[in-house]
Amino acid sequence: MLSETDRKLLRVAYDEALAGYEEGGCPIGSALARGDELIARGRNQRVQQGDPIAHGEMDCLRKAGRQTSYRDMTLYTSLSPCMMCTGTIIQFGIPRVVIGENQTFEGNIDFLRERGVEVVLVQDPDCIALMTRFIREKPALWNEDIAEE
Amino acid sequence: MLSETDRKLLRVAYDEALAGYEEGGCPIGSALARGDELIARGRNQRVQQGDPIAHGEMDCLRKAGRQTSYRDMTLYTSLSPCMMCTGTIIQFGIPRVVIGENQTFEGNIDFLRERGVEVVLVQDPDCIALMTRFIREKPALWNEDIAEE
Repeated sequence: MLSETDRKLLRVAYDEALAGYEEGGCPIGSALARGDELIARGRNQRVQQGDPIAHGEMDCLRKAGRQTSYRDMTLYTSLSPCMMCTGTIIQFGIPRVVIGENQTFEGNIDFLRERGVEVVLVQDPDCIALMTRFIREKPALWNEDIAEE
Repeated sequence: MLSETDRKLLRVAYDEALAGYEEGGCPIGSALARGDELIARGRNQRVQQGDPIAHGEMDCLRKAGRQTSYRDMTLYTSLSPCMMCTGTIIQFGIPRVVIGENQTFEGNIDFLRERGVEVVLVQDPDCIALMTRFIREKPALWNEDIAEE
């Protein structure tokens, strides 16, 4: 179930993605929240910082800093998580993930659910449109980001 | 099979782990190499940089910078990879991982193998001794690093 708070926080993730697009980067953004309290927001930093591990979700979790527990948090992401980010969600014990879309990149939603993570998949038109545009404009950068050759 | 090159590069990972211990951090280190060419080395940065995603393997991959392919590389790590690092190895398409030990932390070796990664498990006495000492001295920090409550 998507609440009003969820919609607002998914929009934060989208705004991060859009900022990344405008910087020339991979437009994938994320937010971490406890209820309606925003803990951190982040976006893919491959181009901006030359950092291959800083996918949107990872940059957000880095910016959240050290936490003793993620058990009462939700992670918002504009795009379905890759295996790195999926493994991180599981390892960190994040119980709930709200995903903007998985039409441009399938990700690992089944695996998250198998491991007990609640997944809300939105198929947000703005998230889809932004990634579609990016993949069309910069296919080599996108393939590098997901290590497709 | 563990080659002489593998032994040398696993030692680099151990040296990184030891440096992390001496800094007061989580003593887990990593190296990335193409054959006998060292690409990058890194260590857990939770304490040093307040960065929860910078496990040893992740810090090493970050320091390696942008790569178009990892298909001819081996990742060395002093400790068996957690789910974050396991997911990253799979996502990045790293075909081979040499692991110092999995006695102090089991990790996800079966899952790596299921996904086609060649895993060489060494059970190196120095790696085991360092982690055993760390876990005894700083159990709360270790639990935080693997998100155990």
